[in-house]
Amino acid sequence: MVGPEIERLIQLLSRLPGLGPRSARRAALRLVEKRESLLVPLAQAMADAAARVRTCSVCGNFDTIDPCAICADHRRDPSMLCVVEDVAGLWAMERTGSFKGRYAVLGGLLSALDGVGPEDLGIESLVARALDPAITEIILATPATVEGQTTAHYVAERLAPCNVTVSGLAHGVPVGGELDHLDDGTITAALRARRVF
Amino acid sequence: MVGPEIERLIQLLSRLPGLGPRSARRAALRLVEKRESLLVPLAQAMADAAARVRTCSVCGNFDTIDPCAICADHRRDPSMLCVVEDVAGLWAMERTGSFKGRYAVLGGLLSALDGVGPEDLGIESLVARALDPAITEIILATPATVEGQTTAHYVAERLAPCNVTVSGLAHGVPVGGELDHLDDGTITAALRARRVF
Repeated sequence: MVGPEIERLIQLLSRLPGLGPRSARRAALRLVEKRESLLVPLAQAMADAAARVRTCSVCGNFDTIDPCAICADHRRDPSMLCVVEDVAGLWAMERTGSFKGRYAVLGGLLSALDGVGPEDLGIESLVARALDPAITEIILATPATVEGQTTAHYVAERLAPCNVTVSGLAHGVPVGGELDHLDDGTITAALRARRVF
Repeated sequence: MVGPEIERLIQLLSRLPGLGPRSARRAALRLVEKRESLLVPLAQAMADAAARVRTCSVCGNFDTIDPCAICADHRRDPSMLCVVEDVAGLWAMERTGSFKGRYAVLGGLLSALDGVGPEDLGIESLVARALDPAITEIILATPATVEGQTTAHYVAERLAPCNVTVSGLAHGVPVGGELDHLDDGTITAALRARRVF
Protein backbone atom coordinates (compact mmCIF):
# COMPACT_ATOMS: atom_id res chain seq x y z
CA MET A 1 0.00 0.00 0.00
CA VAL A 2 2.90 2.38 0.75
CA GLY A 3 5.60 2.71 -1.90
CA PRO A 4 9.01 1.12 -1.23
CA GLU A 5 10.65 4.56 -0.79
CA ILE A 6 8.29 5.50 2.05
CA GLU A 7 8.45 1.98 3.50
CA ARG A 8 12.24 2.21 3.68
CA LEU A 9 12.04 5.68 5.25
CA ILE A 10 9.67 4.34 7.92
CA GLN A 11 11.86 1.32 8.57
CA LEU A 12 15.01 3.44 9.05
CA LEU A 13 13.24 6.10 11.13
CA SER A 14 11.89 3.41 13.47
CA ARG A 15 15.50 2.61 14.44
CA LEU A 16 15.95 6.04 16.01
CA PRO A 17 15.65 6.09 19.81
CA GLY A 18 12.21 7.32 20.85
CA LEU A 19 10.49 6.35 17.59
CA GLY A 20 8.57 3.08 17.34
CA PRO A 21 6.98 1.68 14.17
CA ARG A 22 3.85 3.80 14.65
CA SER A 23 5.56 7.10 15.37
CA ALA A 24 8.08 6.41 12.59
CA ARG A 25 5.13 6.21 10.19
CA ARG A 26 3.81 9.54 11.47
CA ALA A 27 7.28 11.06 11.16
CA ALA A 28 7.64 9.77 7.58
CA LEU A 29 4.25 11.25 6.67
CA ARG A 30 5.20 14.61 8.17
CA LEU A 31 8.45 14.52 6.20
CA VAL A 32 6.70 13.81 2.91
CA GLU A 33 4.05 16.44 3.66
CA LYS A 34 6.71 19.06 4.39
CA ARG A 35 9.05 18.12 1.58
CA GLU A 36 10.62 21.52 0.94
CA SER A 37 10.75 22.80 4.51
CA LEU A 38 11.74 19.58 6.30
CA LEU A 39 12.50 16.51 4.17
CA VAL A 40 14.99 18.13 1.78
CA PRO A 41 16.85 20.12 4.49
CA LEU A 42 16.99 17.09 6.80
CA ALA A 43 18.32 14.83 4.04
CA GLN A 44 20.96 17.47 3.34
CA ALA A 45 21.82 17.92 7.03
CA MET A 46 22.27 14.16 7.39
CA ALA A 47 24.44 13.94 4.29
CA ASP A 48 26.55 16.86 5.64
CA ALA A 49 26.90 15.20 9.03
CA ALA A 50 27.79 11.85 7.46
CA ALA A 51 30.44 13.52 5.30
CA ARG A 52 31.95 15.86 7.87
CA VAL A 53 31.44 14.64 11.45
CA ARG A 54 34.18 12.34 12.75
CA THR A 55 35.33 10.90 16.06
CA CYS A 56 38.05 12.90 17.85
CA SER A 57 41.18 10.72 17.97
CA VAL A 58 42.13 12.19 21.35
CA CYS A 59 38.95 12.12 23.44
CA GLY A 60 36.31 10.29 21.37
CA ASN A 61 33.95 13.29 21.01
CA PHE A 62 32.14 13.91 17.69
CA ASP A 63 33.19 16.98 15.73
CA THR A 64 34.05 18.09 12.21
CA ILE A 65 37.67 18.70 13.21
CA ASP A 66 40.17 16.26 14.73
CA PRO A 67 41.25 16.90 17.46
CA CYS A 68 37.79 18.20 18.39
CA ALA A 69 37.04 21.80 19.39
CA ILE A 70 37.33 20.93 23.10
CA CYS A 71 40.69 19.16 22.77
CA ALA A 72 42.00 21.97 20.53
CA ASP A 73 40.80 24.78 22.83
CA HIS A 74 43.85 26.17 24.63
CA ARG A 75 41.67 27.92 27.22
CA ARG A 76 40.67 24.50 28.56
CA ASP A 77 42.30 23.47 31.84
CA PRO A 78 45.00 20.94 30.83
CA SER A 79 45.22 19.53 34.36
CA MET A 80 41.68 18.05 34.48
CA LEU A 81 40.32 15.06 32.59
CA CYS A 82 36.71 13.89 32.85
CA VAL A 83 35.93 10.25 31.98
CA VAL A 84 32.43 9.72 30.52
CA GLU A 85 30.61 6.67 29.18
CA ASP A 86 29.65 8.16 25.83
CA VAL A 87 29.31 11.39 23.87
CA ALA A 88 25.84 11.93 25.38
CA GLY A 89 27.53 12.09 28.78
CA LEU A 90 30.13 14.51 27.43
CA TRP A 91 27.38 16.78 26.07
CA ALA A 92 25.53 16.62 29.38
CA MET A 93 28.69 17.72 31.23
CA GLU A 94 29.28 20.51 28.70
CA ARG A 95 25.71 21.79 29.06
CA THR A 96 26.37 22.52 32.73
CA GLY A 97 29.29 24.80 31.82
CA SER A 98 30.82 23.75 35.16
CA PHE A 99 33.73 21.71 33.85
CA LYS A 100 36.60 23.46 32.13
CA GLY A 101 38.96 20.52 31.54
CA ARG A 102 39.06 17.97 28.74
CA TYR A 103 37.36 14.60 28.27
CA ALA A 104 37.92 10.91 27.68
CA VAL A 105 34.98 9.01 26.16
CA LEU A 106 35.06 5.30 27.05
CA GLY A 107 32.54 4.32 24.39
CA GLY A 108 30.65 2.00 26.73
CA LEU A 109 30.74 0.37 30.16
CA LEU A 110 32.21 -2.91 31.38
CA SER A 111 29.50 -5.55 31.21
CA ALA A 112 30.06 -9.27 31.71
CA LEU A 113 26.50 -9.85 30.47
CA ASP A 114 27.06 -8.05 27.16
CA GLY A 115 30.64 -9.35 26.87
CA VAL A 116 32.19 -5.86 27.07
CA GLY A 117 35.69 -6.15 28.54
CA PRO A 118 38.38 -3.53 29.28
CA GLU A 119 39.90 -4.03 25.81
CA ASP A 120 36.61 -2.87 24.20
CA LEU A 121 36.73 0.49 25.98
CA GLY A 122 39.27 3.26 25.50
CA ILE A 123 40.97 2.44 28.81
CA GLU A 124 44.50 1.83 27.44
CA SER A 125 44.56 5.22 25.74
CA LEU A 126 43.14 6.80 28.91
CA VAL A 127 46.00 5.32 30.98
CA ALA A 128 48.46 6.56 28.34
CA ARG A 129 46.98 10.07 28.55
CA ALA A 130 47.10 9.94 32.36
CA LEU A 131 50.90 9.63 32.16
CA ASP A 132 51.04 13.21 30.81
CA PRO A 133 52.53 15.14 33.77
CA ALA A 134 50.24 18.11 32.98
CA ILE A 135 47.22 16.09 34.16
CA THR A 136 46.73 16.20 37.92
CA GLU A 137 43.11 15.07 38.38
CA ILE A 138 40.88 12.60 36.58
CA ILE A 139 37.15 12.80 37.38
CA LEU A 140 35.17 9.60 36.77
CA ALA A 141 31.71 10.66 35.56
CA THR A 142 30.32 7.29 34.49
CA PRO A 143 26.63 6.76 35.37
CA ALA A 144 25.62 5.94 38.95
CA THR A 145 24.44 2.48 37.84
CA VAL A 146 25.98 -0.88 38.77
CA GLU A 147 27.82 -1.08 35.44
CA GLY A 148 28.83 2.57 35.57
CA GLN A 149 30.29 2.21 39.06
CA THR A 150 31.97 -1.13 38.26
CA THR A 151 33.63 0.58 35.32
CA ALA A 152 34.63 3.54 37.49
CA HIS A 153 36.25 1.24 40.06
CA TYR A 154 38.12 -0.65 37.35
CA VAL A 155 39.34 2.59 35.76
CA ALA A 156 40.40 3.94 39.17
CA GLU A 157 42.43 0.77 39.79
CA ARG A 158 44.13 1.05 36.40
CA LEU A 159 44.94 4.71 37.08
CA ALA A 160 46.38 4.02 40.55
CA PRO A 161 50.01 3.71 39.31
CA CYS A 162 49.73 7.06 37.48
CA ASN A 163 50.57 10.15 39.45
CA VAL A 164 47.04 11.65 39.39
CA THR A 165 44.19 12.25 41.81
CA VAL A 166 41.23 10.09 40.78
CA SER A 167 37.81 11.40 41.88
CA GLY A 168 34.16 10.62 41.15
CA LEU A 169 30.95 12.63 40.95
CA ALA A 170 29.22 13.02 44.32
CA HIS A 171 26.09 10.98 45.02
CA GLY A 172 23.26 12.73 46.82
CA VAL A 173 19.86 14.38 46.64
CA PRO A 174 19.27 15.84 43.14
CA VAL A 175 18.73 19.61 43.15
CA GLY A 176 14.98 20.14 43.52
CA GLY A 177 14.52 16.55 44.71
CA GLU A 178 11.99 15.67 47.42
CA LEU A 179 13.19 13.12 49.97
CA ASP A 180 9.87 11.29 49.78
CA HIS A 181 10.37 10.54 46.08
CA LEU A 182 13.97 9.34 46.38
CA ASP A 183 15.15 5.76 46.69
CA ASP A 184 16.81 4.58 49.90
CA GLY A 185 20.21 4.19 48.26
CA THR A 186 20.34 7.85 47.25
CA ILE A 187 19.26 9.06 50.70
CA THR A 188 21.83 6.78 52.38
CA ALA A 189 24.55 8.10 50.04
CA ALA A 190 23.50 11.70 50.71
CA LEU A 191 23.53 11.08 54.45
CA ARG A 192 27.00 9.51 54.36
CA ALA A 193 28.33 12.40 52.28
CA ARG A 194 26.65 15.08 54.43
CA ARG A 195 28.34 18.47 54.50
CA VAL A 196 28.97 20.74 57.49
CA PHE A 197 27.33 24.15 56.91
CA MET B 1 29.86 22.91 22.23
CA VAL B 2 28.21 20.85 19.45
CA GLY B 3 29.31 21.59 15.89
CA PRO B 4 26.89 23.45 13.59
CA GLU B 5 26.28 20.29 11.51
CA ILE B 6 25.04 18.33 14.52
CA GLU B 7 23.17 21.37 15.87
CA ARG B 8 21.28 21.68 12.59
CA LEU B 9 20.54 17.94 12.58
CA ILE B 10 19.11 18.19 16.12
CA GLN B 11 17.05 21.27 15.23
CA LEU B 12 15.50 19.60 12.16
CA LEU B 13 14.91 16.26 13.93
CA SER B 14 13.10 18.05 16.76
CA ARG B 15 10.45 19.14 14.23
CA LEU B 16 9.39 15.53 13.65
CA PRO B 17 6.23 14.50 15.51
CA GLY B 18 7.11 12.54 18.65
CA LEU B 19 10.60 14.02 19.01
CA GLY B 20 11.23 16.93 21.39
CA PRO B 21 14.53 18.81 21.77
CA ARG B 22 15.89 16.19 24.17
CA SER B 23 14.95 13.10 22.18
CA ALA B 24 16.10 14.83 18.97
CA ARG B 25 19.53 15.16 20.58
CA ARG B 26 19.54 11.47 21.45
CA ALA B 27 18.43 10.61 17.92
CA ALA B 28 21.19 12.78 16.41
CA LEU B 29 23.78 11.08 18.61
CA ARG B 30 22.55 7.64 17.60
CA LEU B 31 22.73 8.70 13.94
CA VAL B 32 26.32 9.93 14.25
CA GLU B 33 27.30 6.82 16.23
CA LYS B 34 25.80 4.55 13.56
CA ARG B 35 27.03 6.48 10.57
CA GLU B 36 27.36 3.62 8.08
CA SER B 37 24.39 1.53 9.18
CA LEU B 38 21.88 4.33 9.87
CA LEU B 39 22.92 7.91 9.06
CA VAL B 40 24.08 7.32 5.48
CA PRO B 41 21.15 5.02 4.51
CA LEU B 42 18.61 7.37 6.11
CA ALA B 43 20.06 10.42 4.34
CA GLN B 44 19.84 8.46 1.09
CA ALA B 45 16.29 7.25 1.79
CA MET B 46 15.20 10.83 2.48
CA ALA B 47 16.86 12.13 -0.67
CA ASP B 48 15.14 9.33 -2.65
CA ALA B 49 11.77 10.13 -1.11
CA ALA B 50 12.22 13.87 -1.74
CA ALA B 51 13.12 13.20 -5.37
CA ARG B 52 10.52 10.56 -6.18
CA VAL B 53 7.46 10.78 -3.91
CA ARG B 54 4.72 13.07 -5.20
CA THR B 55 1.07 13.83 -4.44
CA CYS B 56 -1.46 11.89 -6.52
CA SER B 57 -3.34 14.43 -8.65
CA VAL B 58 -6.53 12.35 -8.41
CA CYS B 59 -6.88 11.42 -4.73
CA GLY B 60 -4.10 13.28 -2.86
CA ASN B 61 -2.24 10.14 -1.70
CA PHE B 62 1.58 10.07 -1.69
CA ASP B 63 3.26 7.76 -4.19
CA THR B 64 6.08 7.68 -6.72
CA ILE B 65 3.60 7.39 -9.59
CA ASP B 66 0.76 9.75 -10.52
CA PRO B 67 -2.04 8.63 -10.45
CA CYS B 68 -1.04 6.64 -7.36
CA ALA B 69 -1.04 2.83 -7.17
CA ILE B 70 -4.53 2.81 -5.63
CA CYS B 71 -6.09 5.10 -8.26
CA ALA B 72 -4.33 3.15 -11.04
CA ASP B 73 -5.36 -0.28 -9.69
CA HIS B 74 -8.17 -1.58 -11.93
CA ARG B 75 -9.16 -4.21 -9.35
CA ARG B 76 -10.36 -1.41 -7.07
CA ASP B 77 -14.12 -0.97 -6.83
CA PRO B 78 -14.86 2.11 -8.99
CA SER B 79 -18.25 2.65 -7.34
CA MET B 80 -16.92 3.50 -3.85
CA LEU B 81 -15.07 6.62 -2.74
CA CYS B 82 -13.77 7.13 0.82
CA VAL B 83 -13.18 10.72 2.01
CA VAL B 84 -10.35 11.05 4.56
CA GLU B 85 -8.77 14.01 6.31
CA ASP B 86 -5.18 13.23 5.35
CA VAL B 87 -2.85 10.55 4.02
CA ALA B 88 -2.47 9.15 7.55
CA GLY B 89 -6.21 8.44 7.49
CA LEU B 90 -5.90 6.83 4.06
CA TRP B 91 -3.09 4.58 5.31
CA ALA B 92 -5.14 3.64 8.38
CA MET B 93 -8.08 2.62 6.15
CA GLU B 94 -5.74 0.65 3.87
CA ARG B 95 -4.20 -1.22 6.81
CA THR B 96 -7.61 -2.69 7.62
CA GLY B 97 -7.85 -4.21 4.15
CA SER B 98 -11.63 -3.79 4.50
CA PHE B 99 -12.13 -1.06 1.91
CA LYS B 100 -11.71 -1.89 -1.76
CA GLY B 101 -12.73 1.42 -3.34
CA ARG B 102 -10.70 4.55 -4.01
CA TYR B 103 -9.98 7.64 -1.90
CA ALA B 104 -10.27 11.41 -1.73
CA VAL B 105 -7.84 13.14 0.65
CA LEU B 106 -9.19 16.50 1.86
CA GLY B 107 -5.83 17.70 3.16
CA GLY B 108 -7.33 19.08 6.38
CA LEU B 109 -10.59 19.84 8.17
CA LEU B 110 -12.81 22.90 8.22
CA SER B 111 -11.77 25.07 11.15
CA ALA B 112 -13.00 28.60 11.79
CA LEU B 113 -10.34 28.92 14.50
CA ASP B 114 -7.46 28.07 12.17
CA GLY B 115 -9.06 29.93 9.24
CA VAL B 116 -9.47 26.78 7.13
CA GLY B 117 -12.43 27.23 4.78
CA PRO B 118 -13.95 24.95 2.11
CA GLU B 119 -11.72 26.49 -0.57
CA ASP B 120 -8.61 25.28 1.31
CA LEU B 121 -9.71 21.64 1.14
CA GLY B 122 -10.08 19.47 -1.95
CA ILE B 123 -13.88 19.73 -1.82
CA GLU B 124 -14.43 21.18 -5.32
CA SER B 125 -12.49 18.34 -6.93
CA LEU B 126 -14.37 15.85 -4.74
CA VAL B 127 -17.71 17.21 -5.98
CA ALA B 128 -16.39 17.03 -9.55
CA ARG B 129 -15.37 13.39 -9.03
CA ALA B 130 -18.77 12.61 -7.47
CA LEU B 131 -20.42 13.54 -10.79
CA ASP B 132 -18.79 10.45 -12.36
CA PRO B 133 -21.79 8.11 -12.89
CA ALA B 134 -19.61 5.11 -11.95
CA ILE B 135 -19.53 6.31 -8.34
CA THR B 136 -22.55 5.21 -6.32
CA GLU B 137 -21.43 5.65 -2.70
CA ILE B 138 -19.17 8.11 -0.91
CA ILE B 139 -18.09 7.14 2.63
CA LEU B 140 -17.09 10.06 4.86
CA ALA B 141 -14.26 8.81 7.10
CA THR B 142 -13.18 12.09 8.68
CA PRO B 143 -12.30 11.83 12.40
CA ALA B 144 -15.06 11.61 15.02
CA THR B 145 -14.05 15.01 16.41
CA VAL B 146 -16.05 18.24 16.29
CA GLU B 147 -14.03 19.52 13.32
CA GLY B 148 -14.10 16.14 11.59
CA GLN B 149 -17.88 15.87 11.91
CA THR B 150 -18.44 19.52 10.92
CA THR B 151 -16.40 18.85 7.80
CA ALA B 152 -18.34 15.62 7.13
CA HIS B 153 -21.66 17.47 7.38
CA TYR B 154 -20.45 20.21 5.05
CA VAL B 155 -19.16 17.67 2.52
CA ALA B 156 -22.44 15.72 2.73
CA GLU B 157 -24.38 18.92 1.99
CA ARG B 158 -22.19 19.72 -0.98
CA LEU B 159 -22.63 16.18 -2.30
CA ALA B 160 -26.43 16.23 -1.91
CA PRO B 161 -27.08 17.37 -5.52
CA CYS B 162 -24.87 14.56 -6.87
CA ASN B 163 -26.55 11.24 -7.54
CA VAL B 164 -24.63 9.29 -4.85
CA THR B 165 -25.32 7.69 -1.49
CA VAL B 166 -23.35 9.55 1.18
CA SER B 167 -22.53 7.52 4.31
CA GLY B 168 -20.30 7.89 7.36
CA LEU B 169 -18.34 5.52 9.59
CA ALA B 170 -20.41 4.09 12.45
CA HIS B 171 -19.86 5.40 15.97
CA GLY B 172 -19.84 2.88 18.78
CA VAL B 173 -17.86 0.82 21.24
CA PRO B 174 -14.32 0.16 19.90
CA VAL B 175 -13.55 -3.55 19.46
CA GLY B 176 -12.03 -4.70 22.76
CA GLY B 177 -13.36 -1.60 24.53
CA GLU B 178 -14.65 -1.78 28.11
CA LEU B 179 -17.81 0.22 28.78
CA ASP B 180 -16.34 1.52 32.03
CA HIS B 181 -13.47 3.21 30.19
CA LEU B 182 -15.59 4.83 27.49
CA ASP B 183 -16.93 8.37 27.47
CA ASP B 184 -20.68 8.98 27.69
CA GLY B 185 -20.92 10.25 24.12
CA THR B 186 -19.57 7.01 22.68
CA ILE B 187 -21.88 4.86 24.80
CA THR B 188 -24.88 7.01 23.84
CA ALA B 189 -23.93 6.72 20.15
CA ALA B 190 -23.48 2.95 20.47
CA LEU B 191 -26.87 2.64 22.19
CA ARG B 192 -28.63 4.70 19.50
CA ALA B 193 -27.02 2.63 16.75
CA ARG B 194 -27.71 -0.72 18.46
CA ARG B 195 -28.09 -3.73 16.21
CA VAL B 196 -30.64 -6.54 16.37
CA PHE B 197 -28.87 -9.92 16.72
